[in-house]
Amino acid sequence: RGIRVGYTPDVLTDATAELSVALLLSACRRLPEAAEQVRSGGWTTWKPLWMCGHGLSNSTVGIIGLGRIGQAVARRLKPFGVKKFLYTGSGPKPETAAEFGAEFVPLTKLAEESDFVVVTCALTPATQGMCNKDFFSRMKKTSVFVNTSRGAVVNQEDLYDALAQGQIAAAGLDVTTPEPLPTDHPLLSLKNCVILPHIGSATYATRNTMAVLAVNNLLAGLRGEPMPHELKL
Amino acid sequence: RGIRVGYTPDVLTDATAELSVALLLSACRRLPEAAEQVRSGGWTTWKPLWMCGHGLSNSTVGIIGLGRIGQAVARRLKPFGVKKFLYTGSGPKPETAAEFGAEFVPLTKLAEESDFVVVTCALTPATQGMCNKDFFSRMKKTSVFVNTSRGAVVNQEDLYDALAQGQIAAAGLDVTTPEPLPTDHPLLSLKNCVILPHIGSATYATRNTMAVLAVNNLLAGLRGEPMPHELKL
Repeated sequence: RGIRVGYTPDVLTDATAELSVALLLSACRRLPEAAEQVRSGGWTTWKPLWMCGHGLSNSTVGIIGLGRIGQAVARRLKPFGVKKFLYTGSGPKPETAAEFGAEFVPLTKLAEESDFVVVTCALTPATQGMCNKDFFSRMKKTSVFVNTSRGAVVNQEDLYDALAQGQIAAAGLDVTTPEPLPTDHPLLSLKNCVILPHIGSATYATRNTMAVLAVNNLLAGLRGEPMPHELKL
Repeated sequence: RGIRVGYTPDVLTDATAELSVALLLSACRRLPEAAEQVRSGGWTTWKPLWMCGHGLSNSTVGIIGLGRIGQAVARRLKPFGVKKFLYTGSGPKPETAAEFGAEFVPLTKLAEESDFVVVTCALTPATQGMCNKDFFSRMKKTSVFVNTSRGAVVNQEDLYDALAQGQIAAAGLDVTTPEPLPTDHPLLSLKNCVILPHIGSATYATRNTMAVLAVNNLLAGLRGEPMPHELKL
């Protein structure tokens, strides 16, 4: 009470959307597994289906939470030949959904019809544990799941089972529960799960912009003036 | 002489352009290094510049060889906030260069001004060893080099020196000399070099399409008919 809080919205949208696409491509085209084959000597003569993955051409992409970051992800994925965007979420339906031809659908339909699911929603009581056993069981065996929002949106035990049993093809996570993830966590034993240490906003340019905005919030607060971005609860 | 040769052009453009972007993002956002930090316990508390990379926002991207694949790469990179596209090459200047606002420049200027260099040209006597000590020494210390064309376009000893000495920030290679690359090759000792086992066209959909086209070439050849795609020298 009485403590003012500044934050740094918007300025990390581009970096986080970029990282979401990087993670999606890394998971669907199996980059870590392929790079490991180079190191281990598994790369030998050409074989027709060796290290094949699932590309974005003619795919359906489902975005959970089509807010600023979700829209920035869709804008980047569109020229990869995505056939159809689906989205779901509790927020206002964005006007830009038309730009991507994105269709609003229930969560269950999004799970069933998407080749790629990207989670970019906020963590709320409604979204906590939302990606669970029921959700993954509806997804296609060839589908790829990406989460760059908050770890707790996902039930990690259920995700592990889905990946280990081949219910889905691959996953990419920039966020986990807890953070850092223990180095002996079962998800780290899977070849088809790419896990990053929450680096969504980790570009030099973005972190510098965040620092400047944080300092301007702080200076305004110290002067008793309105902050550029102040949290209002 | 007298032996007809079929090939499979065009159908791998999308998969290879997708892989080029995947490799670029993986290198510039340091995905393999970051994923390794999760496994090794290097992921601890939040630090402002830990695992920061160089993003595409406001960047200049130089494409060597703006043919089918180079254009498909540019089309995919554009919505990431690329400020300027440069290109070079000996082929006809593509009409689509205007779509990206791409400017034709000499190779030296491309090296000097690009934040990202993507090589998507053919291997010819003119391009063999083209990316050498002189080329890398002109690049920015913060720049990222990506090759998804043919390994011999790059002088690998010079690339190793440039990466090891910090003349450039990172590299991503889907092609090497030789292939497979020996597992004790010096490039594999570098944290800032991502090496993939020539998986540009490795999606299930693309490899199936390539197989069908190869078979149709073969059947036409056996019947003494014109092939759908026959190599003419």
